[in-house]
Formats: sequence, structure tokens, C-alpha cells
Amino acid sequence: MSKPIDFYFEFSSPYGYIASQIAEEVEGRIGRPMAWRPMLLGPVMKITGQVPLVDVPMKGEYSKRDFVRTARLHKVAFRYPEKFPIGTVAAVRAFYWVNDRDPPQARKLAKALYSAYFVDGADISAPAAVEEIARGIGIDGDGLARALEDRVVKDRAKQEVDAAIATGVFGSPYFVVDGEPFWGVDRIPMMEDWVKTGGW
Amino acid sequence: MSKPIDFYFEFSSPYGYIASQIAEEVEGRIGRPMAWRPMLLGPVMKITGQVPLVDVPMKGEYSKRDFVRTARLHKVAFRYPEKFPIGTVAAVRAFYWVNDRDPPQARKLAKALYSAYFVDGADISAPAAVEEIARGIGIDGDGLARALEDRVVKDRAKQEVDAAIATGVFGSPYFVVDGEPFWGVDRIPMMEDWVKTGGW
Repeated sequence: MSKPIDFYFEFSSPYGYIASQIAEEVEGRIGRPMAWRPMLLGPVMKITGQVPLVDVPMKGEYSKRDFVRTARLHKVAFRYPEKFPIGTVAAVRAFYWVNDRDPPQARKLAKALYSAYFVDGADISAPAAVEEIARGIGIDGDGLARALEDRVVKDRAKQEVDAAIATGVFGSPYFVVDGEPFWGVDRIPMMEDWVKTGGW
Repeated sequence: MSKPIDFYFEFSSPYGYIASQIAEEVEGRIGRPMAWRPMLLGPVMKITGQVPLVDVPMKGEYSKRDFVRTARLHKVAFRYPEKFPIGTVAAVRAFYWVNDRDPPQARKLAKALYSAYFVDGADISAPAAVEEIARGIGIDGDGLARALEDRVVKDRAKQEVDAAIATGVFGSPYFVVDGEPFWGVDRIPMMEDWVKTGGW
């Protein structure tokens, strides 16, 4: 039962950010590790015909309250970013480039990117911003800068995003445990119960 | 602190049904009554530009699993109806007609309608089906049949639906407690925590 739980998330997703902040506690409670798999919701929206949550009439305004309340409920620092949502393809590429070399470092990068965006209010959409944050945690910034321009690295990230979509990932966070999908911070207790009670 | 919590729901909503089954436990834990307020999601979708959940690519298939899991988590009987979603305007009109005369009886009717649809698989879209279910719990079926054709009763229901939408209700279940909105069965714990900790 030590097979990892897949943890999919989008760097521009408040709920993905909140999930990342409590992921280790969840791993501890379930007793299984998580494989972090950032992806992009832009291509998903083209398939589902949906728009960013905050742009949906009625639901959008509600969501802004709910981000804050959900962060508070989980005791996670959160500030609604000035620029939201943003493109996060550079962040995703950086993550997988680092992850292929040093998975714990990639997880550290993901957390640093999320904190920069959802706590410090930094715009992490530009490659330069991602590089600066990566440097701040000891990653080779020049190497990363070159990697972000590299076709192989771009394709590698695209493959991961395509695979996530093929798996059915349509939101963030999105967990898959033994083939069973759970979408949302609010489904974490259900996922824990599901694993504990042995599934269907 | 005995001001009711508004409990909005759509009769064709699986999550609304599940919420209705646990509403009394929630009332007990929070220590405040709920005012049941059925509404219609059809007019909401015209505003939000959304489609029924199960028709959204990717998300729709997921939802069908989640209905069953959510029902199981809350120990509520649930069977995915053959015809889904359905129009529920007759059910809403019947509810408010009964509610203006006998609120506890209206709540009983709502539960009977929900069980007929989500447990027994009955199509409750037709006025005749609503009347039959109402008769089954001792409501004057002939009076109800006349009421469902009455312009005053139709306007009364429409007013309630319009008021719900003006309040911001875009989903089901949707709770409003002291002006604070909570959407979804999964937000009930958050609502309880919010009331307990005194709000913002």
C-alpha cells in the first residue's frame, strides 16, 4: 500500500495552493506518499467549455470568499493575488526539469512558487520570475533559464499536462489514489475515508 | 441567535437531496433552525452560462462517482435516476403552496419528493407525479392539482426563485447564515465552524 497518491495541481489555483500546504499532513494520516504533478487548466477549459472560476457570473464572487475561508479553515496564509489567474507554463516546465533531477527539490520549488504568488503577491507567470524564485532555494538559475527555452523540456512538460488530461484531471487540486479520483481540497477527508475503508 | 439558516436547494440536485437528508442533524449541531427554500437552477444557468453538471466534459463523469461517494459518506440512500436532470417547477410550486399553509408538512413533502426521485427512481417532473406523492403524505391532492394551475401559485414560486437568484444562489445546496453563503454539502463543516467561531 505504499504506491504514491497522484497530486495534480495548477500553480494559479488557490485550492491547489492550499492543498500543497497540507499535503504532508495528509500523507502522514493516510500513510502514503504523494507524487506532485503540476498541470495546466487552460487546455482543460478548452475541452470542458468552462472559464476561470472567478469569471463565472455569481459563482465568481462567491469563490473569492471561499478561497479566503478555505485557507482560514486549514490555517494557511493566503492573499488574493492582484493578477489572477495567470499563465503558469514556465512554472510547470521548471518543476518537471527540477523533478527529473531532484524530486524533493522540485517539491520545494513548487512550494516556493505558490508562496510567492499566494502569500507575497508576486507574478510568477514570467520565466524570469520563476528563475529568481528557483535561485532563492539554491537551484541553478542559469541552467534553469536555458532549460525553459529548451524544446525537450517544453515537450516534457507538455507530455505531463497531456497525460493529466488523459487521466481525467479537470480541476485543481485533483488526487488519484489506486485509480480513484478526488477533486478539491474539500474531498481530502473523503479520500482519507475511502482509503481507510478500502474503497468501493 | 435563533434566526433561521436559509437552505436553498433544487429538487433535481443529488447534493441538494443529500443535504436534505442530513439537514436536521446540522440544525441540531448548530442549534439553529433551517428555512427550506427550493429553487430552480435552470434560470441560474442562463445567467452563469453553465450547463448541467453531468453534461460538462470530464467533470460530468467524475460527478456521477462523486454523487454516490458523497451519499455513502453521509450514509444516505442514493440511486442515480434514469432520467436526470429533470424539470422541477411543479415540485417547487407545490412546496411553496403547502409551505404557506403548513411549513412542517412542506418539509415532509420535500423529503418525499426527493426520496421518490433519488431512491425510488420516480420521475417527479410532471404535476401528476407531484400530486400523487403529496397525496401519499396526506396532502389534499385535488386542492394541489388546482393550485398547480393557479397563476397566483405560479407567481408565488417564481418570486421565490427570483429572490434566491437575487441573493446569489447559483448552486444546490446553498446555505445563507447571517448573510454568509455556503455552497455544497462539502461546505457544511465550514459553515458549522464559521458559526461556532463567530464569523469573519
